[in-house]
Amino acid sequence: METKSPIRCIVKLGGAAITCKNEFEKINEANLVTVSSQLREAMMFGSSSGSVLEMDWSKRPGVSETPKKVDDFKEQQQGLDYNSFVVIHGAGSFGHFQASKSGVHKGGLNQPLVKAGFVATRISVTSLNLEIVRALAREGIPSVAMSPFSCGWSTRDRNIASADVSTVVEALDSGFVPVLHGDAVLDESLGCTILSGDVIISHLAAHLKPQFVVFLTDVFGVYDRPPTEPNAVLLREIAVREDGKWSVVNPTFQDSDTKVETSVASHDTTGGMETKISEAATIAKLGIDVYIVKAATEHSLTALSGKLRDKIPEDWLGTVIRYVP
Amino acid sequence: METKSPIRCIVKLGGAAITCKNEFEKINEANLVTVSSQLREAMMFGSSSGSVLEMDWSKRPGVSETPKKVDDFKEQQQGLDYNSFVVIHGAGSFGHFQASKSGVHKGGLNQPLVKAGFVATRISVTSLNLEIVRALAREGIPSVAMSPFSCGWSTRDRNIASADVSTVVEALDSGFVPVLHGDAVLDESLGCTILSGDVIISHLAAHLKPQFVVFLTDVFGVYDRPPTEPNAVLLREIAVREDGKWSVVNPTFQDSDTKVETSVASHDTTGGMETKISEAATIAKLGIDVYIVKAATEHSLTALSGKLRDKIPEDWLGTVIRYVP
Repeated sequence: METKSPIRCIVKLGGAAITCKNEFEKINEANLVTVSSQLREAMMFGSSSGSVLEMDWSKRPGVSETPKKVDDFKEQQQGLDYNSFVVIHGAGSFGHFQASKSGVHKGGLNQPLVKAGFVATRISVTSLNLEIVRALAREGIPSVAMSPFSCGWSTRDRNIASADVSTVVEALDSGFVPVLHGDAVLDESLGCTILSGDVIISHLAAHLKPQFVVFLTDVFGVYDRPPTEPNAVLLREIAVREDGKWSVVNPTFQDSDTKVETSVASHDTTGGMETKISEAATIAKLGIDVYIVKAATEHSLTALSGKLRDKIPEDWLGTVIRYVP
Repeated sequence: METKSPIRCIVKLGGAAITCKNEFEKINEANLVTVSSQLREAMMFGSSSGSVLEMDWSKRPGVSETPKKVDDFKEQQQGLDYNSFVVIHGAGSFGHFQASKSGVHKGGLNQPLVKAGFVATRISVTSLNLEIVRALAREGIPSVAMSPFSCGWSTRDRNIASADVSTVVEALDSGFVPVLHGDAVLDESLGCTILSGDVIISHLAAHLKPQFVVFLTDVFGVYDRPPTEPNAVLLREIAVREDGKWSVVNPTFQDSDTKVETSVASHDTTGGMETKISEAATIAKLGIDVYIVKAATEHSLTALSGKLRDKIPEDWLGTVIRYVP
């Protein structure tokens, strides 16, 4: 099922970028506001002018009420045209505690702890999802929550078994921005498991064929070793070949590509960057550029705006993963 | 698509029963706690003993944290058997403001106000949904949120066009309690509209064939005139005939049935009771008993426990709507 208009971008809001990693169920409000504002600018064809039409008319704790935002729309007669975006977010400090304590990813719904963990995980991640939908709506982005579990998505041995994208497509065709997230789902063989945001992105990218995919993280991109280490080098451009293998083309290293791949893999346990590159490479192989960039920076705005498709500016910081036939 | 085991009950938590009608987006906490506790008792085969295994492990504003509820499950080796329930809730003081200000029910997504209202309505009703799922989970009920919009349900001219129940069935078969709600949905001809909780109940009742349906409201049941009027009489038993027409069989009135129907209809603008009876009659015609009862009372517990199926106690207050061939 294809959308009426082409999809511009699928963007992943990394859990580390929008939550405070080390504080239980705490949103990084400053980052979330900036990310939402940048998304709005990127969706509105790069224009940051015009008044923001707030679409969250609900009460907020600590904010005085009387929602009179409705009046703003009276002057707004024309429909707004948006670039089509899909947003997917990770869990960060939401959901992980509940999932890991109960072992939801391993399945076994007949155990009370696993069943309770499934319920508790969904409560936590849908709480975060609601806050992200609200933050986007406050920036005038017509965001709608779509939980994979509610969409009826399920897995078999942790791989996607059924994930009909038609509901997402219909929401896009109606001019909305679907907001999905990593979720606890039913698994045909295990009973249940966790469907990660990254797997959802690969699935949606394959079906929706966006022009590009952006991963917003809490570091500047992919490095050749943990970015906290001295002398860590940012990998600015990675080329994915026909056979799916990838190599770093910028910066150029004196040693062979193999050397770099190994050094990346060697710290995989600390950051999962090898996994991240592999998944990004799968998307890139479809001919879709992937940008991995630090959230809430000028570099993320450049990436979201699609400007990197033509030329990567010298002063842009981030990692581009691109298919080179 | 049918569930593996028969469904015990579909219960509607009326918006007026679980929210404070006249206060914007305010939950009736006391009622919600009692309703959740009664649901637990009814699901656990009427047993109120045993420790409650909390399934909401998330932070709560104003409640001190350190979630250590996980330890409770270590002693609990056996899976718990539940009667299968489906919960649907209304909006009450959530969603109505957003929907009525924007005219979401009339459609027209090309108007910015309607599109914004769609987003705002969904934010409001999913906020309520999350709180209800959490309240149920705190009572040890394995509740899972299922928003009709996310489920891909849609309408055509406000009637259900597509509402696949397979996701609900799979959740039930996995031992969960799906929690649905009235929602803003896409409409094939209007663009969008509101799908009400009552329409969802009729749809699910027809497909899932529960043993009985309970409507929890803020009055004791259906009266022959607005319940605030002096001399208002509670209609205790309504019989639905083969042709779909209904009449009051208890209490017996001196005048004809027609008289009662008219007097009920005459105050329809104030309470929508005529509509409520008509919809309940549609369900009853399927051979499914419908109980309309005041939430958080001994009478609601009796209804939820299924005890009314055999015999209606003399001292039970509420309205039974039943098919009499």
